[in-house]
Amino acid sequence: MSESIRVAVLGASGRMGTTTVRAVQEADGLELVAALDAGDDLRAVTDAGAQVAVDFTVPSVTEQNVHVLVDAGVHAVVGTTGWDDGSLGRVHDHLLRAPGVGVVVAPNFALGAVLAMSFARQAARWFESAEVVELHHPDKVDAPSGTARHTAQGIAAARAAAGLGSVPDATTQALDGARGADVDGVRVHAVRLRGLVAHEEILLGNTGEMLTIRHDSFDRVSFMPGVLLAVRRVVDRPGLTVGLEHLLGLPA
Amino acid sequence: MSESIRVAVLGASGRMGTTTVRAVQEADGLELVAALDAGDDLRAVTDAGAQVAVDFTVPSVTEQNVHVLVDAGVHAVVGTTGWDDGSLGRVHDHLLRAPGVGVVVAPNFALGAVLAMSFARQAARWFESAEVVELHHPDKVDAPSGTARHTAQGIAAARAAAGLGSVPDATTQALDGARGADVDGVRVHAVRLRGLVAHEEILLGNTGEMLTIRHDSFDRVSFMPGVLLAVRRVVDRPGLTVGLEHLLGLPA
Amino acid sequence: MSESIRVAVLGASGRMGTTTVRAVQEADGLELVAALDAGDDLRAVTDAGAQVAVDFTVPSVTEQNVHVLVDAGVHAVVGTTGWDDGSLGRVHDHLLRAPGVGVVVAPNFALGAVLAMSFARQAARWFESAEVVELHHPDKVDAPSGTARHTAQGIAAARAAAGLGSVPDATTQALDGARGADVDGVRVHAVRLRGLVAHEEILLGNTGEMLTIRHDSFDRVSFMPGVLLAVRRVVDRPGLTVGLEHLLGLPA
Amino acid sequence: MSESIRVAVLGASGRMGTTTVRAVQEADGLELVAALDAGDDLRAVTDAGAQVAVDFTVPSVTEQNVHVLVDAGVHAVVGTTGWDDGSLGRVHDHLLRAPGVGVVVAPNFALGAVLAMSFARQAARWFESAEVVELHHPDKVDAPSGTARHTAQGIAAARAAAGLGSVPDATTQALDGARGADVDGVRVHAVRLRGLVAHEEILLGNTGEMLTIRHDSFDRVSFMPGVLLAVRRVVDRPGLTVGLEHLLGLPA
Repeated sequence: MSESIRVAVLGASGRMGTTTVRAVQEADGLELVAALDAGDDLRAVTDAGAQVAVDFTVPSVTEQNVHVLVDAGVHAVVGTTGWDDGSLGRVHDHLLRAPGVGVVVAPNFALGAVLAMSFARQAARWFESAEVVELHHPDKVDAPSGTARHTAQGIAAARAAAGLGSVPDATTQALDGARGADVDGVRVHAVRLRGLVAHEEILLGNTGEMLTIRHDSFDRVSFMPGVLLAVRRVVDRPGLTVGLEHLLGLPA
Repeated sequence: MSESIRVAVLGASGRMGTTTVRAVQEADGLELVAALDAGDDLRAVTDAGAQVAVDFTVPSVTEQNVHVLVDAGVHAVVGTTGWDDGSLGRVHDHLLRAPGVGVVVAPNFALGAVLAMSFARQAARWFESAEVVELHHPDKVDAPSGTARHTAQGIAAARAAAGLGSVPDATTQALDGARGADVDGVRVHAVRLRGLVAHEEILLGNTGEMLTIRHDSFDRVSFMPGVLLAVRRVVDRPGLTVGLEHLLGLPA
Repeated sequence: MSESIRVAVLGASGRMGTTTVRAVQEADGLELVAALDAGDDLRAVTDAGAQVAVDFTVPSVTEQNVHVLVDAGVHAVVGTTGWDDGSLGRVHDHLLRAPGVGVVVAPNFALGAVLAMSFARQAARWFESAEVVELHHPDKVDAPSGTARHTAQGIAAARAAAGLGSVPDATTQALDGARGADVDGVRVHAVRLRGLVAHEEILLGNTGEMLTIRHDSFDRVSFMPGVLLAVRRVVDRPGLTVGLEHLLGLPA
Repeated sequence: MSESIRVAVLGASGRMGTTTVRAVQEADGLELVAALDAGDDLRAVTDAGAQVAVDFTVPSVTEQNVHVLVDAGVHAVVGTTGWDDGSLGRVHDHLLRAPGVGVVVAPNFALGAVLAMSFARQAARWFESAEVVELHHPDKVDAPSGTARHTAQGIAAARAAAGLGSVPDATTQALDGARGADVDGVRVHAVRLRGLVAHEEILLGNTGEMLTIRHDSFDRVSFMPGVLLAVRRVVDRPGLTVGLEHLLGLPA
């Protein structure tokens, strides 16, 4: 039997961090060796002999955390938001000088959401029309969601790569906002409804047929299978990986 | 056995008129006695002894048709669009001087759509949140659909009558159009997708639960049961009736 | 301002009881005056001056509880399962001798589920086809759910009352179970899926159109608005009321 | 510019054949050179110089047609049902002796249905639960549909390959048929509803999340993009190809 992977959690008292701590403790083959909060010294990670650190901290410190972890030879799984191309580029370059160390940055750890986005990209080139509807609780401040925006961009890129033109739309008289937001030519609609958590529906249409891909996230525990998968895979995956889809064996 | 009801169809060569002619011919208890096109003299209706005339003509002539029919003592079922409060008021007043004659004006003859709207109004007061999504083929020029707009207005009226405040929505950062059109405080989203015909989804949410009412119209034959119902009922329903819901025994 | 209604909760440490205790404590116009567990003496209800008692106990004691409450002049709201026609008949008779006292027995306090069932009954007579799909978590032991069975019975009764025949079904070759369970001639399908809670979908079809009514229950807090509504209404509703729909002003 | 591909249609007066004839006539880059009915001599295909023949005939003649076409060096696209492993094996062996000739046999030409099945197989290993619901018009004689059965088999195979055990299901008391048909351990439910055509919904669940993949086929014209794609690709794809998914660049 293989030994357990030793795991540290950064941001351990936040909502995602707390859930991750519990998930690591209950997972086969993983051992929680450190749980750090804001202000704790990152040396506790190496002192505890952690092989992988999961970062659910805040945008202002996450990149710096990762550089420290890479220098210490600790693999990192990052779920904190706020990573841009600049941050990713710096980590990528850093990893070139740290052979064997892996970093996985994932904007979304819900397997179902990642699969839905991949399927949307795979299907997009075969359909004349495509739109995205996302539905969330009414306390959400941004619209549309980052996931929906990302999905629409993926659809638009797949259509462009296949040489498809713009989606058909004969609308000439519309109430302001009725046709949703335009994300790279793909319409995205944001519904806000008490009782919901996080949901996304991708609609693809051809003459005579429709394909619908829908993901419902009812609870943040739905992120844990993705987090645990990343922890298990990152130890054998040197360099920078952006997006959980690369760990699922899905078409790029 | 009761005798058949004698029916005339006005606008008989249009899309709805053609479908209505066939439906009347195939219906038990109805007899098609006249089918008129644009330019035909309305006296053909009375010459043929029609008891009910179904009007699927055009906005510019439909009100005048109805006044002529009422004067002739012929009941009318009207599916032509373009009726406003002024037109309805004049027909209402006219009918006060034509006791026994009935006119049914219905903006939508799809039983399912009418039921969906009624259910939305019945349910609205019990939910904190409500939104409407309509989906149509991409050749439609207006957004949102009249049915969706009407549904949202019904929801808004029911909420107001029950003393509900505005729906919760914490959105502060939105792409233009993401949150849909605002119809009396109810958000309405219009999807346009090749392959679809006419579809409406009403979403109602409370903490911990969601109620969804969806109507799918795949073909205009779906309007025929409503048209035939109106023809059968109008002969015993003097005065002006606006909306098929009143013939379905639904709460007002 | 009117005084608060004084409320006792029976079965206060069970899952529904705990949720009810909290809901009563947080509700405007209600005051929690007693919370009883199994074995506690029901006299605590009257000692505390409760006007209404909510019973979420167990089938073996719930009817006896209600008789004691009625004798004491305390209104009762009952969510415990296991009530049959015999139990209901005895309470009904008892209430004839206790003028002014009200008892509400509801198999389902989710407003959305009750509305969905009512809408199914209202719509059923207008559609040629009707089926029910219910979806629950995979730890549920019975299939289909009581709600789905009740919904199908309501649809069947409405069809019969309107003189509709059996639903069309040309199936001659079927894998065992493929066409679902037959409940009074209406097919009911039970899906069991990890991640779900309690969901019901009613499908009604005519040539060219479909009407879908769906209720999603994500959390048992969704029952609380119905429980609180019953508590507020039972004080002015003497006699026996079976089913929340009668408190919602819906067609019987 | 490349020359048009010369196409023959066998079974040209059947429902699918008629639709195919029209689609080929309207397609860019294809030329209809022969349309054969039952009883017509297949030599008309070669006489007309057809490069590809589309077979929408009947199970009793389709395999023999294909052998004749292969002998004549004509590529074949086959949508006729009734192909079993024996038929496929014989055509496979025949093609080994006919280098350069291609045959595509597809049980389903609806791109959306093929994509849905592929996505179900890709996703299945990541979910604890999986079920299939198919919905069709009530004149269908078999239940569940071949597509739903095939989808369930694909899900079961993907689960087995990933080492997943059986789906969770605590049902102990069920009405007969409530839990659907068992296809390799995956439950399949068949709904029959007037107004529907052919629809399939694949439901995948994990703790806290659900992924739904749905395909709606409203009209048999939805098969035409798949048929035309096969016609265009078969000329460069020698040997036997079973299933449209191989022409879509999807994971096997």
